[in-house]
Amino acid sequence: MRIASYYDSIGTKSPLIHNITNYVTVNDVANILLAAGASPIMADELEEAADITAICNALCLNIGTLNSRTIPAMYAAGKHASELGHPIVLDPVGVGASLLRTQTALGLLEKLKVTVVRGNLSELKALAGQAAQTRGVDAALGDAIDEQSLPAVAGFAQDYAAQIGAVVAITGAIDIVADANQAYAVRNGHTMMSRITGSGCMLTALITAAVAANQDAALEATIAAVAAMGVSGQRAADQVICQGKGTVSFRSALIDAISILSGEALDADARLSQVA
Amino acid sequence: MRIASYYDSIGTKSPLIHNITNYVTVNDVANILLAAGASPIMADELEEAADITAICNALCLNIGTLNSRTIPAMYAAGKHASELGHPIVLDPVGVGASLLRTQTALGLLEKLKVTVVRGNLSELKALAGQAAQTRGVDAALGDAIDEQSLPAVAGFAQDYAAQIGAVVAITGAIDIVADANQAYAVRNGHTMMSRITGSGCMLTALITAAVAANQDAALEATIAAVAAMGVSGQRAADQVICQGKGTVSFRSALIDAISILSGEALDADARLSQVA
Amino acid sequence: MRIASYYDSIGTKSPLIHNITNYVTVNDVANILLAAGASPIMADELEEAADITAICNALCLNIGTLNSRTIPAMYAAGKHASELGHPIVLDPVGVGASLLRTQTALGLLEKLKVTVVRGNLSELKALAGQAAQTRGVDAALGDAIDEQSLPAVAGFAQDYAAQIGAVVAITGAIDIVADANQAYAVRNGHTMMSRITGSGCMLTALITAAVAANQDAALEATIAAVAAMGVSGQRAADQVICQGKGTVSFRSALIDAISILSGEALDADARLSQVA
Repeated sequence: MRIASYYDSIGTKSPLIHNITNYVTVNDVANILLAAGASPIMADELEEAADITAICNALCLNIGTLNSRTIPAMYAAGKHASELGHPIVLDPVGVGASLLRTQTALGLLEKLKVTVVRGNLSELKALAGQAAQTRGVDAALGDAIDEQSLPAVAGFAQDYAAQIGAVVAITGAIDIVADANQAYAVRNGHTMMSRITGSGCMLTALITAAVAANQDAALEATIAAVAAMGVSGQRAADQVICQGKGTVSFRSALIDAISILSGEALDADARLSQVA
Repeated sequence: MRIASYYDSIGTKSPLIHNITNYVTVNDVANILLAAGASPIMADELEEAADITAICNALCLNIGTLNSRTIPAMYAAGKHASELGHPIVLDPVGVGASLLRTQTALGLLEKLKVTVVRGNLSELKALAGQAAQTRGVDAALGDAIDEQSLPAVAGFAQDYAAQIGAVVAITGAIDIVADANQAYAVRNGHTMMSRITGSGCMLTALITAAVAANQDAALEATIAAVAAMGVSGQRAADQVICQGKGTVSFRSALIDAISILSGEALDADARLSQVA
Repeated sequence: MRIASYYDSIGTKSPLIHNITNYVTVNDVANILLAAGASPIMADELEEAADITAICNALCLNIGTLNSRTIPAMYAAGKHASELGHPIVLDPVGVGASLLRTQTALGLLEKLKVTVVRGNLSELKALAGQAAQTRGVDAALGDAIDEQSLPAVAGFAQDYAAQIGAVVAITGAIDIVADANQAYAVRNGHTMMSRITGSGCMLTALITAAVAANQDAALEATIAAVAAMGVSGQRAADQVICQGKGTVSFRSALIDAISILSGEALDADARLSQVA
């Protein structure tokens, strides 16, 4: 699969993305959207949620620091986005770690027309109602995605995608992107991505921009965003490790890499394969 | 106009700045204030707003992620700052993008004694009640400031400054700073400043520090802050582009440049001219 | 005192830390915890506070941007953490700057079983009810810790530690860590640490991770964290100054340094001495 055009269209269409997201990684989320050529707006107040969604092209919902004030804003923005036919991408950060997170993520999936869900395997299992381990916002040790677990995880992703009628992206050492009909593996990325906060949140925002810019191709757009993040992670790690630098320099180098990545270079380095 | 002394007085007086600001760029705002030699304190709870303002030298209000809890805190802090004669600087982020933002920005301007308003042209037009386009928190394409549009925009800035009794700073490819009597253009800056989040918010905070340190010279202090940001943006871009780095490295280099900028160097590189 | 093992155990035990913290430095706090080998989760909503604390190993409370919604969450999380025997570390940011901050910090100390309190000297004096100066979130000029004031400050730290039954860490040009029985001075660190936001917040989080990983040795763990931050600050400053870079590059270099610091290297560079 060639993905260059899906990635490049973020820059050419420059979609405006409404983010209701956590305050931990919000700056990185805004910067990666700008780096990719999209425009971010963060707005989580109920009173303006529908107004803001109305001027945007897509909605990114991230429950990382959800609270009693922002949850109603997520529903209001999501309802209006659904009415307007805007893509909605959900990041169920830490679902399974508290009842509030589980109820909110399931409620958003039930009430809204969600286009893509992205999380780690522990989060996706918790969403699917499987007895899930949880380690806060990180995947449990038993939920690693490697060559051995890949077929089973891909099958799970596809089944769950069919059940919720959305594209499912499960990220880990190998990333999986599936809809009801097919599943792809993306073998890019680097372990340093798990040593900074925000790799997942940034990817979810990048998926939102990609889907907004490719509304008829949510699966391909999601794969393009996942691969772009992975390729950029590899480039950033190569650079940082060779300079003897550490984790926060890696974060800068990662967003830098997105800001200078072309679709053509992405196609050259993306390691995609269909697994189901 | 020589602006060195206005900039240097930030470091020598080290004003303490009360910020009620958005959670997207708040870290950058705190760091640029520290970089320039001022001290930031962020406090947005109604119950302590007046207490905090009382120990500070100026108030920076930024509506980037305004909400039902922080809007009353803005009014309370602003009212007390007005009583104490502290400068108040307003950044009407995204005004025009929602009714809530428009009402809040206009309400703050009406109820408080605001010293400086800083925004892009779309935001300032929305404030002035002109039929404005909006692109979220960014200026609309039709609202670019170039050599052709400069005289008209400078005239608008001056008229609006007269109407609200405050200094008006409109930032874009060319920046304009005006009060009721005169308007200046600042031709520094770099396009990379629009590829990160926070350029505007950081500048507004820097203006607040400059005005706090130069209370009898709000126009000159604002020009100094605008030029300092522009000169630092050029230096940061030169460095980052030559190293093949990207947008987030640019952000670091920009704040770094402020942290080592002297008033003397600023005077050497600032490109100021009076336009009206 | 050899501190290598206390620091290294953060990485080997990888404690999960529940943070209710301010939105200014929250990203740096998450990243320094990850850099040191711990895992952060930020959750400040009352409805999930106890759930999240239950899956974590320790609780970090930071009142930097406290508000009416998060204060009850601090009490709820703290109560549950106390019941579970989890270490609780308190950062009374800006205590003394408003009645709300003073009441909240004192209330948390009274109601919860706090293991460590970390702040600057102005903050600790305010907590102890001494007529304190305050300069927002920074120590007042008269509250510098130097060789001359060291004995008196160490005595104060030890007395206050005895009074509240917790380890007390007072940071400044010289850092002091004391419990009721002994007081240590740490002579690492660099003045650039006061030119960025978050040095204190990051250290408090690092202390939380160290105490979580060394539950029977709160004093030693706190000293290890304080020294790790100081040694990393020196390394970061050496690197940044020699490259002609500025304050935000220093912040990146500081967290980078933590991410590659070993206990062995820490022991080699830590400058510890018992003062009482």
